[in-house]
Amino acid sequence: MKIAIVGTGMVGQALAGRLAELGHEVTVGTRDVAATMVHTEPDGMGNPPFSAWAPAHPTVKLDTFAAATADAELIVNATSGNVSMAALTAVGADNLAGKVVLDIANPLDFSNGFPPTLFVKDTDSLGEQIQAAFPQAKVVKALNTLTAALMVNPKLLADGDHSVFVCGNDAEAKRTVTDLLESFGHTDVIDLGDITTARGTEMVLPIWLRLMGTLNTPMFNFKIVR
Amino acid sequence: MKIAIVGTGMVGQALAGRLAELGHEVTVGTRDVAATMVHTEPDGMGNPPFSAWAPAHPTVKLDTFAAATADAELIVNATSGNVSMAALTAVGADNLAGKVVLDIANPLDFSNGFPPTLFVKDTDSLGEQIQAAFPQAKVVKALNTLTAALMVNPKLLADGDHSVFVCGNDAEAKRTVTDLLESFGHTDVIDLGDITTARGTEMVLPIWLRLMGTLNTPMFNFKIVR
Repeated sequence: MKIAIVGTGMVGQALAGRLAELGHEVTVGTRDVAATMVHTEPDGMGNPPFSAWAPAHPTVKLDTFAAATADAELIVNATSGNVSMAALTAVGADNLAGKVVLDIANPLDFSNGFPPTLFVKDTDSLGEQIQAAFPQAKVVKALNTLTAALMVNPKLLADGDHSVFVCGNDAEAKRTVTDLLESFGHTDVIDLGDITTARGTEMVLPIWLRLMGTLNTPMFNFKIVR
Repeated sequence: MKIAIVGTGMVGQALAGRLAELGHEVTVGTRDVAATMVHTEPDGMGNPPFSAWAPAHPTVKLDTFAAATADAELIVNATSGNVSMAALTAVGADNLAGKVVLDIANPLDFSNGFPPTLFVKDTDSLGEQIQAAFPQAKVVKALNTLTAALMVNPKLLADGDHSVFVCGNDAEAKRTVTDLLESFGHTDVIDLGDITTARGTEMVLPIWLRLMGTLNTPMFNFKIVR
């Protein structure tokens, strides 16, 4: 599949690398290609910049938001939640129309330090805001409840015996995303319902962040035992 | 142990019955003993009233909030979140002082129908509000992330292979609650940290409620796979 990744950070790199490895045609979108390749500092979490990651992934292309997404069949929102709307606006409604948009972002607000709060929650969600802003996109919220390494390689933990969720209004788009997640190795993809159920998955972040502190690792995930 | 249960509903009944079965001296506290025993209608969820439950549990006593809690070593807040503060105020700060208060309530607001919203979240929690209102109590938030039957009999599901959390400022109180949970059959009790971590466990409710709808049963629980 022809896939565009919006976002050059850790989540974008993880998705791009894994999708390319699985044989997909992957282009990462960024605001300014030259600036992205010039930037050589790690991000705030100490993760390598795209310019350091790219040489090891020669099949992954880098292009502007619009050029990367124009011909894509599926678009991944792998930006930080606080810049998601700006990045998707730069992609443009026309480039999102009719496409499956896998939204991984969380509405985390770090402006008051750790732990972050959520800038939208409970009666609305980032997933819903994106769907409302781009009504012709087929938004599917998924993978926002676990760390990047496990999003794309679930079998790194307990041979993949844990759960992920899909939320969205379009059944076919959820099927496409579910197939993609299963190709990563996920074996328990739970369809929570329409895009309003993204509220629940985004509101999992506060306990996720505290668990990371308690367990001293991000390499854990929720399993829905039933 | 001498234990008081504040709340006569499904959660209070489950805790009272199991604790009595395990040999504890259990008194359920209510606003008006006569009114509680006269009330014969199921609650809004179709659960039996206390008056129907009580005859099968003759060792469990029923008394006023104050009388039930005065001599208790541990007090369980098993009320609905929207009436917790009123119920604990009726119990009285003196009866809560120095005691372990196991707070199971969730701040659910059903005033706009289903799904409920949370009347406190993200920057505060019901657990913190109770701790702030009764600073001499040793509040431990726990068991608010699973259905009543599994709170007290975790081995009914996957032989107990799933997780629960404790949140609170007092390490000894958390140890007491953890011991109690282990006596119920819980094998993975995760100490998330101080009472502010109750925000995370209360914010799990939105996904919990959606999962209940998707799975069509409340008999599920989160396991933290790591």
